[in-house]
Amino acid sequence: MGRVVQKYGGSSVADAESIKRVAKRVVSTKQAGNEVVVVISAMGDTTDELLDLATQVSPQPPDRELDMLLTAGERMSAALLAMAIADLGAHARSFTGSQAGVITTSAHGNARIMNITPGRIESAVDEGDIVIVAGFQGVSQDTKDVTTIGRGGSDTTAVALAAALNADACEIYTDVDGVFTADPRIAPAARRIPEISYEEMLELAACGSKILHLRCVEYARRENVPIHVRSSFSAKDGTWVKDLEDITMEHAIISGVAHDTGEAKITIVGVPDRIGEAAKIFNAVSSADVNIDMIVQNISEVETSRTDISFTVPKGDGQRAIQALQGVKEEVGFSDVLYDDRIGKVSVVGVGMRSHPGVTAKFFTALAEAEVNLEMISTSEIRISVVVDTDDVPRAVRAAHTAFGLDADGEAVVYAGTGR
Amino acid sequence: MGRVVQKYGGSSVADAESIKRVAKRVVSTKQAGNEVVVVISAMGDTTDELLDLATQVSPQPPDRELDMLLTAGERMSAALLAMAIADLGAHARSFTGSQAGVITTSAHGNARIMNITPGRIESAVDEGDIVIVAGFQGVSQDTKDVTTIGRGGSDTTAVALAAALNADACEIYTDVDGVFTADPRIAPAARRIPEISYEEMLELAACGSKILHLRCVEYARRENVPIHVRSSFSAKDGTWVKDLEDITMEHAIISGVAHDTGEAKITIVGVPDRIGEAAKIFNAVSSADVNIDMIVQNISEVETSRTDISFTVPKGDGQRAIQALQGVKEEVGFSDVLYDDRIGKVSVVGVGMRSHPGVTAKFFTALAEAEVNLEMISTSEIRISVVVDTDDVPRAVRAAHTAFGLDADGEAVVYAGTGR
Repeated sequence: MGRVVQKYGGSSVADAESIKRVAKRVVSTKQAGNEVVVVISAMGDTTDELLDLATQVSPQPPDRELDMLLTAGERMSAALLAMAIADLGAHARSFTGSQAGVITTSAHGNARIMNITPGRIESAVDEGDIVIVAGFQGVSQDTKDVTTIGRGGSDTTAVALAAALNADACEIYTDVDGVFTADPRIAPAARRIPEISYEEMLELAACGSKILHLRCVEYARRENVPIHVRSSFSAKDGTWVKDLEDITMEHAIISGVAHDTGEAKITIVGVPDRIGEAAKIFNAVSSADVNIDMIVQNISEVETSRTDISFTVPKGDGQRAIQALQGVKEEVGFSDVLYDDRIGKVSVVGVGMRSHPGVTAKFFTALAEAEVNLEMISTSEIRISVVVDTDDVPRAVRAAHTAFGLDADGEAVVYAGTGR
Repeated sequence: MGRVVQKYGGSSVADAESIKRVAKRVVSTKQAGNEVVVVISAMGDTTDELLDLATQVSPQPPDRELDMLLTAGERMSAALLAMAIADLGAHARSFTGSQAGVITTSAHGNARIMNITPGRIESAVDEGDIVIVAGFQGVSQDTKDVTTIGRGGSDTTAVALAAALNADACEIYTDVDGVFTADPRIAPAARRIPEISYEEMLELAACGSKILHLRCVEYARRENVPIHVRSSFSAKDGTWVKDLEDITMEHAIISGVAHDTGEAKITIVGVPDRIGEAAKIFNAVSSADVNIDMIVQNISEVETSRTDISFTVPKGDGQRAIQALQGVKEEVGFSDVLYDDRIGKVSVVGVGMRSHPGVTAKFFTALAEAEVNLEMISTSEIRISVVVDTDDVPRAVRAAHTAFGLDADGEAVVYAGTGR
């Protein structure tokens, strides 16, 4: 039939029984006539347990050694899956990231895939074997040291391998049925999205959807690898993420509603309205290694020639950002820094926006009718995001979901967890 | 000062505290002016836990995948030790067997080291770093697959690295103070042997001493690497294993008394005294992959032209050997096979035997006075072994130890366990 890369996450291989279940699915894919390459994460809590061991011997373990330690987790699950497959009578061979030719930068703990040299796994596939690759890991081009690829590393490995092997699809197995029009725990009428474009998936991932990581979707778009996100607990179709032109269904104006309650809002009060002041502020925040998301600058007050600037940052970076800002308070001459972590971001995403005017009006009308107050607004070509009070997030998500006609007609969908 | 390879076993790195203790010893060796390369085993029970996981997913896991799985254990302890060393302010880098250039045969589970290409670790040592190498593992020359080196694999890795790096010594750390003249649990008067020759150590290892594995001592003798067996719990000198000509002390006639209760005796009764019958018997046993140790053939009875053949095998191989023998009973025409696992082997070993006649007489006299009955006898140039009843083993060991003047004068030595 074709060549497929499958990726199974940590929750799909949490114990021996789960590994055997994954083995059955892999073997049945192979028996259906496919060439199969599997990318696997570490078992359940293995990574956390190894991190715990590391902090027991050293409060600040060196990154190189941490990568050496953590990559043992995927190596173990890869070998165990190969054994379980062999037990079913099929042939499988496991490979470390390094053996599979996953070449990365040397940024330990957060390396990026630079290149794949798939010679060994290509040969194994040609010889009829199922190939198992330890995810989340590679080998640095410069030092030949073992690296880890950072968050979403196994997904990205799978997409990169699918591209290098010219696979027909990259299947990402998770514990949910696919990508949903909203988080069903908040919007019970949410539906599975059968097909979505790379661009929309990127916006959803950036706006709080945890299903796929940005880097993985970016890689898939660049290499034009179709991704199939689906559940490892059922045989149902999930969500296809692919090039917009390959999407055959009639496309909704809005594909989905995303939300994110992981950010906090920082407001700098009384910033002198002079050229270069904003630059000083954001240089200070960026030096503290804080990622900034939305930025809003109010109109300057005519009388005082001062303005307020608000932006959002991940909650975990909040205190670091505040400290950095206090350090430049004198220099910039603003009057105060306010911190608010009781906020949430709600976004509507859809390529239909490009050709349908009035989406903004409809979104804001729905929010107003739901009595949701907007604190910040930001837009892209295919996305509108608003920052609201944490308590208003569920109401805002449901209102938008209904307003754009996304509510399911039939029974409620089953949603097993958050996924990774 | 010099260049030293240190090897620490699983009991020396059982938990985070032990790893920190080993780190201190490594760093102090480095601070004393040495270049240090460390070979490390997996933590305590890691290997057993991984084996248990393997059997949960597959009753007969493929050897290649088992090696992939088990080698994760040493990789973890190597990374953790490097972290603990970094925490003490020194620089350390961990390497897998493959990265360290340990090239082996492709016999998964029981590979042999063919060659060491120590380029990467040589560079790291030259740059002033402490090098940590994951023991027990290598990479096969043919397939580039990960291999394990079989029993005693970490010791052998250490000796092989010491040879390849031209190290001044290979220190094997264990939980006992060195090699003893007998097992102190049986002979409380046993003493630590300060120096012993490779040849004697080989005989002791073959006769039941568990301190060093045969393969490791063989490698050291071939490459003339001095081994220092010592305790990781004290700073005391242990036992030096080296070339006989480098041994400066006056050498005792007998270096030590070894015993082994892990074997069983098989007797084949009524073997026709014809050329080729013994060959048929031992071919059958050898086809069953059973290792034979001592062999004794009685004098043929003149009247019947039949004889009895006895030999010893590891207890674990006993049933397999019996089955193989039953299979050739008709063909060979012997009358019966007897099995006795209530035996023990007691051996005296010493190069002094070569130049001192009367050792055999002294040994047998001591055993007779201790009322020990001899069931089998076997000798080499520097060893005499006897098989006795299990219950007689302790008495036989003590009698030989006293007869050859090995008993300690002073206080009893402390002996912590069996070591590995």
